Amino acid sequence: METIRRTKIVDLLQKKKEFGATVDVKGWVRTIRGNKYVNFIHLNDGSTINNLQIVADVEKFGEDFFKPVTTGACIHVVGKLVESQGKGQTMEIQADSVEIYGTADPETYPLQKKGHSLEFLREIAYLRPRTNTFGAIFRIRHHMAYAIHKYFNDNGFFYFHTPIVTASDAEGAGSMFQVTTLDFNNTPRNDKGQVDYAEDFFGRQTNLTVSGQLEGELGAMALGAIYTFGPTFRAENSNTPRHLAEFWMIEPEVAFYDINDNMDLAEDFLKYLIRYALEHCKDDIEFLGEHFDKELVDRLQFVIANDFVRLTYTEGVEILEKSGHKFEFPVYWGADLQSEHERYLVEKHFKRPVILTDYPKEIKSFYMKQNEDGKTVRGMDVLFPKIGEIIGGSEREADYDKLVLEVETNGAITPQEAVARAANIVNQHLDAFMVLSEDELSVEVPSIFAPEGAGKNTDLDKQVEELDLSVRSYNCLKRAGIHSVRQLVEFSENDLLNIRNFGAKSIEEVKDKLQSMELGLKP
Amino acid sequence: METIRRTKIVDLLQKKKEFGATVDVKGWVRTIRGNKYVNFIHLNDGSTINNLQIVADVEKFGEDFFKPVTTGACIHVVGKLVESQGKGQTMEIQADSVEIYGTADPETYPLQKKGHSLEFLREIAYLRPRTNTFGAIFRIRHHMAYAIHKYFNDNGFFYFHTPIVTASDAEGAGSMFQVTTLDFNNTPRNDKGQVDYAEDFFGRQTNLTVSGQLEGELGAMALGAIYTFGPTFRAENSNTPRHLAEFWMIEPEVAFYDINDNMDLAEDFLKYLIRYALEHCKDDIEFLGEHFDKELVDRLQFVIANDFVRLTYTEGVEILEKSGHKFEFPVYWGADLQSEHERYLVEKHFKRPVILTDYPKEIKSFYMKQNEDGKTVRGMDVLFPKIGEIIGGSEREADYDKLVLEVETNGAITPQEAVARAANIVNQHLDAFMVLSEDELSVEVPSIFAPEGAGKNTDLDKQVEELDLSVRSYNCLKRAGIHSVRQLVEFSENDLLNIRNFGAKSIEEVKDKLQSMELGLKP
Repeated sequence: METIRRTKIVDLLQKKKEFGATVDVKGWVRTIRGNKYVNFIHLNDGSTINNLQIVADVEKFGEDFFKPVTTGACIHVVGKLVESQGKGQTMEIQADSVEIYGTADPETYPLQKKGHSLEFLREIAYLRPRTNTFGAIFRIRHHMAYAIHKYFNDNGFFYFHTPIVTASDAEGAGSMFQVTTLDFNNTPRNDKGQVDYAEDFFGRQTNLTVSGQLEGELGAMALGAIYTFGPTFRAENSNTPRHLAEFWMIEPEVAFYDINDNMDLAEDFLKYLIRYALEHCKDDIEFLGEHFDKELVDRLQFVIANDFVRLTYTEGVEILEKSGHKFEFPVYWGADLQSEHERYLVEKHFKRPVILTDYPKEIKSFYMKQNEDGKTVRGMDVLFPKIGEIIGGSEREADYDKLVLEVETNGAITPQEAVARAANIVNQHLDAFMVLSEDELSVEVPSIFAPEGAGKNTDLDKQVEELDLSVRSYNCLKRAGIHSVRQLVEFSENDLLNIRNFGAKSIEEVKDKLQSMELGLKP
Repeated sequence: METIRRTKIVDLLQKKKEFGATVDVKGWVRTIRGNKYVNFIHLNDGSTINNLQIVADVEKFGEDFFKPVTTGACIHVVGKLVESQGKGQTMEIQADSVEIYGTADPETYPLQKKGHSLEFLREIAYLRPRTNTFGAIFRIRHHMAYAIHKYFNDNGFFYFHTPIVTASDAEGAGSMFQVTTLDFNNTPRNDKGQVDYAEDFFGRQTNLTVSGQLEGELGAMALGAIYTFGPTFRAENSNTPRHLAEFWMIEPEVAFYDINDNMDLAEDFLKYLIRYALEHCKDDIEFLGEHFDKELVDRLQFVIANDFVRLTYTEGVEILEKSGHKFEFPVYWGADLQSEHERYLVEKHFKRPVILTDYPKEIKSFYMKQNEDGKTVRGMDVLFPKIGEIIGGSEREADYDKLVLEVETNGAITPQEAVARAANIVNQHLDAFMVLSEDELSVEVPSIFAPEGAGKNTDLDKQVEELDLSVRSYNCLKRAGIHSVRQLVEFSENDLLNIRNFGAKSIEEVKDKLQSMELGLKP
């Protein structure tokens, strides 16, 4: 007996053992039921979502033996693998011996044979990997991670570990977590009373990475083609499917690729992953389809069977403008597209994944290759049904002079914006003199959401430029078509959080500004 | 011309194209030499350590064309793949067209055709991936990471992403980096003036993970077998090959495994990785063997051809005691083995990898399964030639009562230690009364490294217990056989850093204590 090695349930169910063989299984009891002759145990060992049926004669084990074996108990069974007589399974084990490793008191063990809400499972995070839902998600996540590595390895990409703790902010992709060994109670300070980061672990202020792109590009310029696949961090307190404080991101960087190569890679990569999932995670995907999203399998099949649509941002905006659809956020050439726009193109108009390219320069990063039109850059977003943007990328600018110009003007604002802001600063200085010669003017335009009495508030006429916001917040507002304070107060906190890159920090900033003018966001 | 797709150099050298074919290659010039008839360019594209020779007729391109093409330049070549006439390569390309993507001014481009020291390359970290040495390391690292995922996937383990930002200290494996969004200049404080971590991003104090073990165990108890492979952090400023501030660690956790299963897994895993490296990274390993370690390939071959030695800690200590070898650190049953001891067993005595098991309970973690002798636990360390400990692990304690006892007594100190320390505290209180009835006693035992006049310092007779050190520092010292202050001052800072888990923080603590007694470490 001792020499039989344990077999995983997934291997038994895939018929890696012959009927009649004596097998050794270990796992956790999902359910147990019986009568005075026989007990039926459904055993799960995590290797698959499917359970193995154990049949144990009452006569053989005694009437009391299985009393402590309840849902959640951990047992070790040796027995004969036989064809199942009953419905619902093709095989079962006739138990010769059962060892009880651990019991789970039904009075206190929280996972019983019934559906539990995700909210409840959140309270018992240490046990929820044992549920079908989380088990399925974790197994699929494993297979997807493996497929990602396999895809890149088979295609000649090198896995590149970029730093997690860094002093770089990459492209300014989001708010950052500080990493420090300094003490809040005994903070070293320099002559000017500033925090002396020379005393910190790395001799400077450091944070958790928001992107490995910069280091990845160095890797690609040496190894030809690399990819990163590691944790990435955003200190943004917005609970949306798009934002997690800690998440794993994939960033391929390839020398000599143009925008078409990027699109080919993105489409081939996604289709490979979906095919891999349908092949290796069939049972888990079917479980999720049945319980969470009936169209899941069909949608995945459809995506791999059809070409992705490739069209320019300009064409996309035209379709949206002509659609007659009433969007929450306005659509016009130059606007950063919102989820509702992206999903309209994918789910309503084309009914398949879309790769949008050639975005306006102003709403994309400085390092994207400029087209000859002087207005658009070779960026691409892959838009996926039910998700929206799933991949973003670009051909990189390789014109050294253009890059220098972009970096030196900071890249975050366009020349027009720079001029507008400069003019505004001059204007503010002139303000002091203007009151000397003019009476105060106030135009009353009632605003629904401004606080009472705000109708008389002349600050409502201020332009966003005059609020002295951070570049990030300012750009986000402008991209969302919010140009004046009067417009701004019509938005709620949640509305603003839906603007890409607009996080909790920006919210605080805007609220502070409004408060200083005795105004506030729409409740 | 336009329709020929680029071929990677590794694919050409592996003969994936026929001689006579027109091919398209892109890469960086390693060297260029020529005469008045022909130029020879060695081109590298990072896909392999090997270069491809490009032959370009001077007549065809003109005399000046290749002047800007120097080491580091980036070019695009289309030409015919032919058998090479020269020595040193089997194939070459006769260039039909050459496009210069970028130049590298030999006056300023730091990577020239010569050996560069690792120290120099450290100064140009953004370029060093382009060197043979770093290229080899990065490619091997990729293949090892991939082999790790492939091994676990093929053996039914699920890849499990454990949290990077956490409030858990795991087993107290090392000093931690704090992760925070609080502001040093405006730190929220509670009524008692303490930092109010309720205001921090996660509502509590958080740090970077030192181990995913705890979460990994939850995964294993649900999915059966998981592994982690992610970044791990230690805020310890010791520059040894064993300690990096940020490194990637692999932690498998498996339900139902005993210590023998663990040893089988460890040996099979390491041999798999080495076989994979020898098969997939032959050229890169040979380069490193030639330039850094002539015995590298032989040693790797030897490791996979021979069984690892498996012996108990007790047997290991006996061998060391009988060896007659003079060790820097004393060897006795109960001592934590140092690198010198481990490497003696591996390199001198057995001349192959060794798995040591059944360590004294006191020097291992509380969660390791206790043997019936009451003295040892089922921990294992895999010791590797030239490296020392390469894997540490254990069978976990599954006796609930023993675990509760260990956790409640904190696990960090044994009952004996607890009693000894309690007695010491009482003793300190009694001190106040003892001086009333006794004359001060001082026994002069000269110490070589204590500061001048220290011979008369009665503090030298103090026991380590009396120094009121942190539990970590205290345990480390005791394990290294340092029981008194007189012994302690014979050690230098570097000696202490060699003690496992003894980091910069412990050094500071010990130095402070000694200074307060007007003593110091050996310089």
